[in-house]
This record gives sequence, structure tokens and C-alpha cells, in this order.
Amino acid sequence: MAYQLHYWPTIQGRGEFVRLALEAAGAEYVDVAREPPAKGGGESALMRDLDAPGNPRPSFAPPFLVDGDVVVGQTAAILLYLGPRLGLAGAGELDALWTHQIQLTIADAVAEAHDTHHPLSTGLYYEDQREAALARAKAFRDERIPKFLNWFERILQRNPLGDVHLVGDSLTYADLSLFQLVAGLRYAFPKATARALAHTPAIVKLYANVARRQRVHDYLQSPRRIPFNEEGIFRAYPELDG
Amino acid sequence: MAYQLHYWPTIQGRGEFVRLALEAAGAEYVDVAREPPAKGGGESALMRDLDAPGNPRPSFAPPFLVDGDVVVGQTAAILLYLGPRLGLAGAGELDALWTHQIQLTIADAVAEAHDTHHPLSTGLYYEDQREAALARAKAFRDERIPKFLNWFERILQRNPLGDVHLVGDSLTYADLSLFQLVAGLRYAFPKATARALAHTPAIVKLYANVARRQRVHDYLQSPRRIPFNEEGIFRAYPELDG
Repeated sequence: MAYQLHYWPTIQGRGEFVRLALEAAGAEYVDVAREPPAKGGGESALMRDLDAPGNPRPSFAPPFLVDGDVVVGQTAAILLYLGPRLGLAGAGELDALWTHQIQLTIADAVAEAHDTHHPLSTGLYYEDQREAALARAKAFRDERIPKFLNWFERILQRNPLGDVHLVGDSLTYADLSLFQLVAGLRYAFPKATARALAHTPAIVKLYANVARRQRVHDYLQSPRRIPFNEEGIFRAYPELDG
Repeated sequence: MAYQLHYWPTIQGRGEFVRLALEAAGAEYVDVAREPPAKGGGESALMRDLDAPGNPRPSFAPPFLVDGDVVVGQTAAILLYLGPRLGLAGAGELDALWTHQIQLTIADAVAEAHDTHHPLSTGLYYEDQREAALARAKAFRDERIPKFLNWFERILQRNPLGDVHLVGDSLTYADLSLFQLVAGLRYAFPKATARALAHTPAIVKLYANVARRQRVHDYLQSPRRIPFNEEGIFRAYPELDG
């Protein structure tokens, strides 16, 4: 039976880390909220499904994945569940754990990237917190982007099986998620990200390798890949780059 | 062999979620950075160990756990590793996954609590971002504390095995972490947290149940429990409560 992914239908957002894993593995899945309303699509159905009264284990927020009787939320937990099933979690418990640890660090970077445009409240418009956003974005560009990317570079360089993959010598969801993080940073902070990537050649190579994998390449060219936009986590506000 | 926990020696912080799990399980562990410098204690030794050149899998930041040859970072990943070993992850894969999903949601709440006093940059003093902190804390009090606590209450109420535990009918690290989150919120935002907890009786009961468990009680009374303070994640700045 196909996996059901439930996530906002108009943004990449956190759901994109799950989409990439499913796509890269060639897994059968339905992106439910992007279906027509008659098939359960749309945002109102998403919110209804999120808190279905019969579900004893509802997710706090989208994305959540349905696999038969199993419902799992939280992006990193979804990937923890899918990883071994899709062959994207390395070999054995310790590789799976390391893959997950990297994912959690990517999730931290993603949350910080989001907060550059919403440093005060997700309930306010960006325009109403722009001054704070300018300050937060500067700190993110100057301190956090280099710190995160330098760590990914370091663990790539230290991988005993080579710097092509983050974990062992085969693709994991950590590679896919790092690709997505870099894609988002390049979209939102093109200048600052280019500066940081000049010092992280292994990340640049990993990004290119992931993008040219056949299934990933096909996905990125397809209408299933929602373009980056200013409703998502990574937003191209030129005043926040520099 | 005793587990080695490496974390900042003067705050509860994220390390406290690991300390609580180890203490509640009666596990043997060393809180390395709190040892004397001659035994590897202190902050400079912590930072040196964090990036030990011989470790191919260094953590991005403290806390990290050493168990023989295994080094694990990221609080939630440490608990994912320890959970089954300490008998704190429920029964089977799906309970372990649900426990972890709850932990990740607690981690999100913890990160948001931190950002109330550091909304612009971790590199600036609180005093230099107090105006933004006032705005962020208001949104956290009015919107986020109730949203998070209502979700924990809902999943307690929906637990088919009763509302005493978050997962199944026995203690997991999710229970311990929710206890810690509530303790922190009560310290940092006593008024706002009391208002929210008035609507979440199952959380109040869980908090009391965890606190009176013998090993937890003994730990909380011991010098091993670092008091909350204004260097940690949860800080009692009266102007941020209300």
C-alpha cells in the first residue's frame, strides 16, 4: 500500500525532507493534501486529518505520514521510521543513529533559517517584524550558516569510507536532507551561502551528486517539486542576505 | 562500564533530559564536565572532547554521550539510543517511535523557550535584545505554551492504556522530559504556565507522579540537580512573564 504523506500543499517546507526520501527511493506515495478536495486534498482536510479524533497518536503539526495503521509525525521521526524501510539509513543500529543525529542537526538549522524571517512570532506578518528579522538574519549569516556548514564538511571529511556520503558509502536520508538544506540556503541567502560553501568543497560535491541521481533529477524537474516561494521556510528576501 | 555524559557543568540545559533518564533508571554514569579538571572536568575539556580529532562522528554541540566506542550527540538521539537500554522507551518499535516523536515535540518547545530571551542572536547578551525578547515572550506565553501543553494533555487523554503515562502504561523518557519541560516553564513563566496548566489536569498529575518517584525524588534533592539559573534555557526574567 502506498505511503500517505500529509503536508501543506503549496510549500516545500519540512515535508520536502520526506518527499525527497520517498522520491529518491522510488517509493509509492500519495501527497494527500495536494490531491483534489474530493480525494481528501486541500488545507482544511489536512487540518481535519491532523487531529482525527480516532487517532490516539496525533501529530503536533504537519507533516505526518500514514502507513496502514501507523501514523507518525515530526519530520525527523518520519525519516527514522522510513529510513530502514527505504534503504536510506545505512547499515545497522549505529549508522541509523548517526544518520538520525545528522538529521536532527539539519532540523536545527532549518528552524533557525525559518526564524530569520519570523524572529518574534509566527502569528505576525514578516513585514511587522522586519527590523528584528534584519538583526536575526545577520547573526544567522555571519555565525550560524558557517558553523553548520563547517560541521557538515568536517563529518564528510572524517567519514572513514570517504567524503562522498555523510554515512558510510551509500545514500542516506541525511545526504538528501543536506542537499535540501543547501538548496534552501542558496535560495534564501545566496550571497552568504556562496561565501560559506567556498570553504566546504565536500558539501558542494555532495549537493551535485544528489542532484544528478536519476530519481532525484527526475523529481526536481517534475511538477511534484513545488518551487521555493515566500510562504515557505526558505524565503528570498534580499534585505536578509548580504 | 558507566555512561559518560558530556555537557555544560553549570546549567540544566538540554543535558538535563539525559540526566533525568539516567537517574530515573538508576544507571551508572559520570557527568564528565562536572568532575575536577584533573579528571577531565571543566568547560575547556568539554569543548576539547566535543571535537576530539580521532572521533569520526563528533557532535555539533553538547550534550553528547560516550558509551564505550559509541559517541552520540543531539539530546533526542541520545535518548533514542538510551531508551531501550534503560527500559524507558515503551514496548516495541512503534512505542519507541511514539516516545521519540513526543521527545522531538518537547525539543521544539524547549528551543522556543530559549529563544524568548535570545530572539535575535545567541551571540548577544539578553540585555541587548530585551525589546525583541518582550515581543517574542508574549507570543510564546499567549500562543505557544497553551498550544504545546494542550497537545500533551490531548495525547495523555487519548492514551488507550490510561492518562498516567504518555506512552503505554509505564514510564518512558517522554514522561521525564515533559516533567522537565513543565518544571522549566514554571520557573521561567510562572504566571503564564499556571494559566495553561489550569486546563491540563493530566499533565499536572503526571508532573507530580514523576517528581515523587523514588529515584527522581532523590535526584532532585541531591547536589547532582543543578538549580535553574539565568545562564540556562529557562530563565526567570519577570518582565518576560505576565
